[in-house]
Amino acid sequence: MNRPIVETCLSPALLHLFDTEHTIVVIIDIFRATSTITTALANGAREVIPVADVNECITLKSLHPGYITAGERDGKVAPGLEYGNSPFEYPPAFIKDKTLALTTTNGTKLLHMVENADQIIIGSFLNLDAVSSYLIRQNKKVLLACAAWKDRVNKEDSLYAGAVATQLQEHFTIACDSTRLCMDLYEQSRRAPSLLDFLRDSNHYRRLSSFGLEKDMEFCTTPNQYQVVPRYNGHAIVTETIPPV
Amino acid sequence: MNRPIVETCLSPALLHLFDTEHTIVVIIDIFRATSTITTALANGAREVIPVADVNECITLKSLHPGYITAGERDGKVAPGLEYGNSPFEYPPAFIKDKTLALTTTNGTKLLHMVENADQIIIGSFLNLDAVSSYLIRQNKKVLLACAAWKDRVNKEDSLYAGAVATQLQEHFTIACDSTRLCMDLYEQSRRAPSLLDFLRDSNHYRRLSSFGLEKDMEFCTTPNQYQVVPRYNGHAIVTETIPPV
Repeated sequence: MNRPIVETCLSPALLHLFDTEHTIVVIIDIFRATSTITTALANGAREVIPVADVNECITLKSLHPGYITAGERDGKVAPGLEYGNSPFEYPPAFIKDKTLALTTTNGTKLLHMVENADQIIIGSFLNLDAVSSYLIRQNKKVLLACAAWKDRVNKEDSLYAGAVATQLQEHFTIACDSTRLCMDLYEQSRRAPSLLDFLRDSNHYRRLSSFGLEKDMEFCTTPNQYQVVPRYNGHAIVTETIPPV
Repeated sequence: MNRPIVETCLSPALLHLFDTEHTIVVIIDIFRATSTITTALANGAREVIPVADVNECITLKSLHPGYITAGERDGKVAPGLEYGNSPFEYPPAFIKDKTLALTTTNGTKLLHMVENADQIIIGSFLNLDAVSSYLIRQNKKVLLACAAWKDRVNKEDSLYAGAVATQLQEHFTIACDSTRLCMDLYEQSRRAPSLLDFLRDSNHYRRLSSFGLEKDMEFCTTPNQYQVVPRYNGHAIVTETIPPV
């Protein structure tokens, strides 16, 4: 019984409770940062630079005119930036070999809060199996870190944590009740017609619907569109080169 | 649609995210503070004074020799105190008309953190229906506040929040995803033979079992043993006098 443990942090405001040393931290921001990062890299982006705020994004653009800057505030492209936080904005023909400088309210903030982790990777339903397989092969302690919404626990990130933990459970020790809550949530979701349907009763679904972003949410809850495992190298998020099994 | 809202705070470390003004806050510490407080008051205790630490408990005793002091550390009566945190220690013959000065690791701490609430009441499975009926009759905004375990989200407090929210849902607006998570957890628990059985896979169950406290947990997960609604009056927790319907 020498299994590594898996824990879940439901909100950035709880991150201080977890020791991230020797740990692979999975950043989760389903609607929509980590789904968009996964899509951009799967579609050939060279790298995605997670940026703390809009001004830093604008500064980066002035230093690197080839960068694509992106970020939203209240469902619209933030003033001074070029693109938004929708995965549909980054098809291969547009994003291939480009650098995307992306700022978001929750996901980027959480990523910058994590210190001393062994690795930081990016999880979304779009690369669910790829992330789980990668974690199983790495065989190290895991923290599933939900970006939440302004520190408030949210349903879609918790649901994804539950989906990953469910896939890991035969190889890992479930070490905290937050993980068990998420797994029970995921189990409940299986009784719904679809993940999206299950998430209709959630704060973020209502907020994003009011911005007309139903199609984004439908895509972000479609499992296994991509095989990439995005990994943060301390500066940018790049596609992890996965060694052959 | 002028229903009051119900929200859930999964950990004291998230309490700052909630506005408790004009709100009835339900303190939840199933294993075992709020179960023991409910039991003591149902069994006729005059009041339960929630005390921040062991030393303050000892000081209170020196000022009021008639007080009963109680508190545990690691499953044993804390040095300097007289009784523990088990509901079985407070039968009517012992506790009737007495004042209990109780210190606990999580529940007491959370109660002292709540500011500006309209009311603070004490919830446990032992008085589940009484609490829900009271909240429905009051018709005010509700915050279900889980004491958790050293700020870590726990399964038993979340489960109770889900049970209350499920009873409230026809009369309240479910206003946050934490509440939805707890309700889904409670829904999952209905597939288990008992609440205790559902909670066997939790950190606190394992910890308290290792102290031989299985019987305590069995009692603490038995719904509706008592009709009392304990309410904090700013100094002590007393039995709320419930007006006739």
